Amino acid sequence: MICAGFQFAGVAAGVQKSGRKDLGLIYSSVPCAVAGLFTRNYVQAAPVRLDRQRIRRPSCQAVIVNSGNANCCTGSQGMQAALRMARCVAAGLNISEEQVLVASTGVIGEPLPVDRIEAAAPALIEALRPEGTRDFAEAIMTTDTVPKVVSRQGEVAGKRFTVTGVAKGAGMIQPDMATMLCFLLSDIRASAEELRSMLAAAVARSLNRITVDGDTSTNDTTLLLANGLSGAAIEAAADRDAVQSVLNDVLLDLAKRLVKDGEGATKLVEVVVRGARSDQEALRIAMTVANSSLVKTALFGEDANWGRILAAAGRAGVELDADRIDLRFDEALMVQNGIGCGKAAEAEATRVLKKPELTMTLDLKLGSGTASMFTCDFSLDYVRINAAYRS
Amino acid sequence: MICAGFQFAGVAAGVQKSGRKDLGLIYSSVPCAVAGLFTRNYVQAAPVRLDRQRIRRPSCQAVIVNSGNANCCTGSQGMQAALRMARCVAAGLNISEEQVLVASTGVIGEPLPVDRIEAAAPALIEALRPEGTRDFAEAIMTTDTVPKVVSRQGEVAGKRFTVTGVAKGAGMIQPDMATMLCFLLSDIRASAEELRSMLAAAVARSLNRITVDGDTSTNDTTLLLANGLSGAAIEAAADRDAVQSVLNDVLLDLAKRLVKDGEGATKLVEVVVRGARSDQEALRIAMTVANSSLVKTALFGEDANWGRILAAAGRAGVELDADRIDLRFDEALMVQNGIGCGKAAEAEATRVLKKPELTMTLDLKLGSGTASMFTCDFSLDYVRINAAYRS
Repeated sequence: MICAGFQFAGVAAGVQKSGRKDLGLIYSSVPCAVAGLFTRNYVQAAPVRLDRQRIRRPSCQAVIVNSGNANCCTGSQGMQAALRMARCVAAGLNISEEQVLVASTGVIGEPLPVDRIEAAAPALIEALRPEGTRDFAEAIMTTDTVPKVVSRQGEVAGKRFTVTGVAKGAGMIQPDMATMLCFLLSDIRASAEELRSMLAAAVARSLNRITVDGDTSTNDTTLLLANGLSGAAIEAAADRDAVQSVLNDVLLDLAKRLVKDGEGATKLVEVVVRGARSDQEALRIAMTVANSSLVKTALFGEDANWGRILAAAGRAGVELDADRIDLRFDEALMVQNGIGCGKAAEAEATRVLKKPELTMTLDLKLGSGTASMFTCDFSLDYVRINAAYRS
Repeated sequence: MICAGFQFAGVAAGVQKSGRKDLGLIYSSVPCAVAGLFTRNYVQAAPVRLDRQRIRRPSCQAVIVNSGNANCCTGSQGMQAALRMARCVAAGLNISEEQVLVASTGVIGEPLPVDRIEAAAPALIEALRPEGTRDFAEAIMTTDTVPKVVSRQGEVAGKRFTVTGVAKGAGMIQPDMATMLCFLLSDIRASAEELRSMLAAAVARSLNRITVDGDTSTNDTTLLLANGLSGAAIEAAADRDAVQSVLNDVLLDLAKRLVKDGEGATKLVEVVVRGARSDQEALRIAMTVANSSLVKTALFGEDANWGRILAAAGRAGVELDADRIDLRFDEALMVQNGIGCGKAAEAEATRVLKKPELTMTLDLKLGSGTASMFTCDFSLDYVRINAAYRS
């Protein structure tokens, strides 16, 4: 599925020691309207600071991304390095350097070897092609085990358009605005303002509802670029809904892939809370359960240890009545009015827990507030990966 | 070190399948003034609900405790079981059942086999002796690997008094009021009101400043009993300070032992934040760093991956200036003004990280607010223990 006018590339520049692809480029043959969302972490990487400035002038034609080094906590040298990344591809593509956005992901606090990036820029530009999404997706991976690319099409006023998204995880994932790195491209015609509001709406129900380890990254960046080359344009409210719906699908799909490929993850689990006093209270409980180490290790052990789920719900800082809570694993009722449903229910829950994807639903019976979070289990491999990450 | 008038026992009642000691008793030869602090989790175990009621009449002569079953999410049957636990020792000790407090720890949601506890009560009472603290401490252990008993002495108006504390961890530990279970006994004479305010002050800087896994238990209980049998009494403000100081020492020592014996822990780490705008903001950052899975796994890997520490500080919801932060591992300066101090500093930090106890100090340089938290590392054994806990 080709998104008109966009080309992609990914090459090995030697930022990562392993020699694998670590430098990616997205290029549109014409300038795009652009919207971006960035981490709310108070410690922010140089490329995040740079993009925040550049995106005020909402036009963009290229995005350069490296993995293996976050270019964060690197001071004024780091900002110089981010500027040089943009400059070297701008020169090769013959566009203004302000038209280039920059993203980085990897270890925090080490100087970015920007010489190597500059040296690789000609080969990177040479490699650009419309079918290059997979190369690009591979180049931005760190501890991810699979590249993540999703494309969907829609139609407005009889004209077909495409939204393509590429994202990477896989640790330091509890996006508070946007995840680690996520790039969304469309050939729809839309204003930067339209893109901003659609992106915010889509992120609120996807990237901002996932967690791998509760750690919000310093580099979280989501960009949405639209170049208008499909001929489809947003003119009526119905058009906007059509585009929003496709964008939502792409982002939710990517968000779930990020969790599924979370560091060491063996399961994708949706934590649903309903019957809360408000959506906000529901979300607070869902987030606490989704981040509980005890819940997540029990999921890894495929142990229907439901007491840990209720205990996590109870410490979320939201007043609740323990004697009214129901808990289901998929459809299986495990706890009714705060009390376990016995051995047969537990056997059924244990069967559900063996599935690679499942839902845990808490019903508080206090109101109509509802929310959900996607999380994964907490495995031995999570510890192995993160005890050895830099070695 | 004997605390006058108190006797202790621990026996195997068959609540835990392994056949190890799982039922403990504390008994004072005379009624004690008592103060208690309990979990703020909205899901609360039956013994917590019972003790909260009983402690309104602040006199107590015995405490019965089982491990292996939390008697939580067990409905009205659970409350009956807690009442029966108190009743069976009251009968044997020939005291009123209202003089008995109850605590439980272990798996949530399974019916408590209270018949076995009643059957073991005569042997439990028979086993009481002044030197029985270790038996009692062993009987209340779950995933703890060592019993935790601390005694300290002080003097008021020339009279010596003793404070003895017994506690257990080792998972679901981020006390929000008091930890899992902690029993403090003294032969000082003090009113219940004095005990309450001294206990609150001591807990605020010890049990409420530790975390193993960020999960607050449904059963957290801390009791302080004082029987006056030493002859020492609180009469002047200086007496109160002397007692507070001994109580603080006992609780801080116990709190550190709980973290050191946290599930799978190999290190005890104090996270100190200074230079914050307020103590409250400092605490929020210290708590976020102390609970970060990425920080804790890096500690396990003895990897001076300081970027994770700054990233965790930045997501605590407290505004800070990343370009001013200093970070030290013990005395070794690792980050100055938000930038790493290079390879030599990292080598020094790596040396510090090999120690079993160390301090990480973040200086924000924004004000005079300060706070500290004790945490442990996140090891493969934490996952092994908790993926298999109920099996």
